[in-house]
Amino acid sequence: MKSVLEMTAEERRAALEELRRQYQEEKDAGMKLDMSRGKPDATQLNLSMDMLQQNPYDLIFTRKGTDVRNYGELAGVDEAKELFGELLGVGPQNVFMGGQSSLALLYDLVMKAYVFGVFGGSRPWGKQEDIKFLCPVPGYDRHFLISQEFGIGMINIPLSETGPDMDLVREYVENDPSVKGIWCVPKYSNPTGCTYSAETVEAFAALKPAADDFRIFWDNAYFVHGFREQDDELVNIFEACRRHGSEDMVYEFLSTSKATFSGAGVAVLAASEANIRFLTRQISVQTLGYDKINQLRHVKYFKNVDGLMEHMKKQADYLRPKFDLALAVLEDELGKSGAGTWTNPNGGYFISFDGLPGTAKRTVELCAEAGLKITPAGSCFPYGKDPEDKNIRLCPSYPSLKKLYQGMKLFCTCEKLAALETLTTE
Amino acid sequence: MKSVLEMTAEERRAALEELRRQYQEEKDAGMKLDMSRGKPDATQLNLSMDMLQQNPYDLIFTRKGTDVRNYGELAGVDEAKELFGELLGVGPQNVFMGGQSSLALLYDLVMKAYVFGVFGGSRPWGKQEDIKFLCPVPGYDRHFLISQEFGIGMINIPLSETGPDMDLVREYVENDPSVKGIWCVPKYSNPTGCTYSAETVEAFAALKPAADDFRIFWDNAYFVHGFREQDDELVNIFEACRRHGSEDMVYEFLSTSKATFSGAGVAVLAASEANIRFLTRQISVQTLGYDKINQLRHVKYFKNVDGLMEHMKKQADYLRPKFDLALAVLEDELGKSGAGTWTNPNGGYFISFDGLPGTAKRTVELCAEAGLKITPAGSCFPYGKDPEDKNIRLCPSYPSLKKLYQGMKLFCTCEKLAALETLTTE
Repeated sequence: MKSVLEMTAEERRAALEELRRQYQEEKDAGMKLDMSRGKPDATQLNLSMDMLQQNPYDLIFTRKGTDVRNYGELAGVDEAKELFGELLGVGPQNVFMGGQSSLALLYDLVMKAYVFGVFGGSRPWGKQEDIKFLCPVPGYDRHFLISQEFGIGMINIPLSETGPDMDLVREYVENDPSVKGIWCVPKYSNPTGCTYSAETVEAFAALKPAADDFRIFWDNAYFVHGFREQDDELVNIFEACRRHGSEDMVYEFLSTSKATFSGAGVAVLAASEANIRFLTRQISVQTLGYDKINQLRHVKYFKNVDGLMEHMKKQADYLRPKFDLALAVLEDELGKSGAGTWTNPNGGYFISFDGLPGTAKRTVELCAEAGLKITPAGSCFPYGKDPEDKNIRLCPSYPSLKKLYQGMKLFCTCEKLAALETLTTE
Repeated sequence: MKSVLEMTAEERRAALEELRRQYQEEKDAGMKLDMSRGKPDATQLNLSMDMLQQNPYDLIFTRKGTDVRNYGELAGVDEAKELFGELLGVGPQNVFMGGQSSLALLYDLVMKAYVFGVFGGSRPWGKQEDIKFLCPVPGYDRHFLISQEFGIGMINIPLSETGPDMDLVREYVENDPSVKGIWCVPKYSNPTGCTYSAETVEAFAALKPAADDFRIFWDNAYFVHGFREQDDELVNIFEACRRHGSEDMVYEFLSTSKATFSGAGVAVLAASEANIRFLTRQISVQTLGYDKINQLRHVKYFKNVDGLMEHMKKQADYLRPKFDLALAVLEDELGKSGAGTWTNPNGGYFISFDGLPGTAKRTVELCAEAGLKITPAGSCFPYGKDPEDKNIRLCPSYPSLKKLYQGMKLFCTCEKLAALETLTTE
């Protein structure tokens, strides 16, 4: 198809008519597909079944003899703290093993900051007026929902290939004491797939916040989720922070939700020793400990960081063809159409698609009418409001290759249709 | 030993000397025993190992075909909601499967009430001045710690064989809108082992709170933990509430921490449909779901309520001899001493001991000096303050029978010693 931007009015009308016919045809095929979330499929989940096949009698005692079936070891078993600490480049004393959902863990830390305040802070966030979070966009909808739930204001920060606009971040953080945090997915960002550059990480570590209770929520959800030969490199933020004496400013999160089981993995918090001590005291009021059998199950299965990376290679080999296929359909259908651009990530779970301004909602609507559920337009922005209504998050991980092909074809039809509709005055 | 209360001053001095000699002897034996918490021992935990031996491929799909390894089913899998609903006498729509720790669940609901308010409430607890919880005493230390952490005031309510003093509860709840909740362990209460009578439950259901955001925290931790032939009967509070139209007032909690694994069980919330809907919406911001593999693991192992009760019978058979032994030593050593009284529960994990006023701290101190760690005196009261300094919680579940015997003997020595010390003016 010729670029929609270069068509004459006449050509646009003809193309629109042809696309409508094509759309009706695809619609009549009666698709029923949910591509709205970055979920693994059953075959990918099967890759981790050996973890559950381990002899349970081998999963009772830690190296130092603690019975993991009983209460205790609030911060997690040593073996788990060591493994995930090594992976993230911090010591075991910087790790807290927090349940099975990193989302629940970061919600919990927002809650604790809101009600009780953070280590070194003078007052709880909830006792201060009009507090705000910076939100690199497009970003992860569930981060923004947490801010919204707590009534925390949100400020959009443009995100580029190298990370958030750090001049803007610095201006806000260093001058406005009501800015209390920033949501970051520093590697294979959700949804753009970008990885923050060394300069960006350095700029984060060098921040001198106006607030005494500012925290960077460094959600490293896709740290080990590269799926191409070329893995993006992310600088260890704690190393950078050590040079600036700013370790207390960062909460880093990781989970195995997309390494083993989305509903039954382990979640990890990495933070300064002062933060870990402070939070462990707070969490000791909340629970006697998280599921340590599951911690030991993970550690004994992975064995070490190499074993974990080996396991992730299997995941990568399974995911890569899905991304290759989705990208090939986009290139084939939209490459010369002028109707949109998209990211080509080396890892993560998403492709971020930008159509013409004012077309995203319409595209999602057209998809839905034809039986394809994709992430709602605007989801990657605070309050669900994409100022240009152009961004769409694509999630190729869940459907089979065959269904993914059909789904991506339909998406492209809808997208071109929406583009032509906005360009055509009928 | 003759009752310490009936001894002459001379007899007391002689008895004290003899006890000091005996204490020194036991101290020299070099005991090292921790009896401070109601934990199962390794053999008791072994009773549940078959649950972990199930074929993991049988634990993938729910009856309706949901893959439990993936995201989703926030409120829990149907099978689990049905099983625990049936156990508690409520429908599956009244159940939320919330992680692996009921303590974490009830902390979370206090937090949500504090920050966001409860269903039907006009304002968050945290936006109101001087809010309070009623605390039946002696009670569970970790409940009181949660109140304390949130800065919620605590009011002691005397607890008898039939439950809290309901006249006092009614007076507070119906006249003081700053009273927002009450901590209850209605069956085999921690630590006294009492079970609330039918009249008590009825009185709870009939409460007409002054506050529009009052909640009963009905922590049914020991509901299936009878260990004698005679199991106490607890009336279903939701049935009583239905007659009074007060279902929204109750949050009921249960967990399998002492049915399967203390660190890796499942936790249950039972509540009105309105509460469950309200809370599920709130929790949807927090996580994509709790560990559903573990839910299915539990349900497939128990099979049904009968299977669960059968499993609990094994636990009971293992625990009963420990309680019998501890009670026999108490009777033998202190039965005629006049130095204390204690409870003889049909279930639960504790014996509540009342010494002479002013002796509890000293008893705990004497035990510690001889190598026996017991629950700190005052633990069963808000702020750790037992107004009479007489209550001690005994936990016979963790030590082996042999160690338990030694520990109980030492406890009795220390207790008599403390009693004689207060009665003797040297």
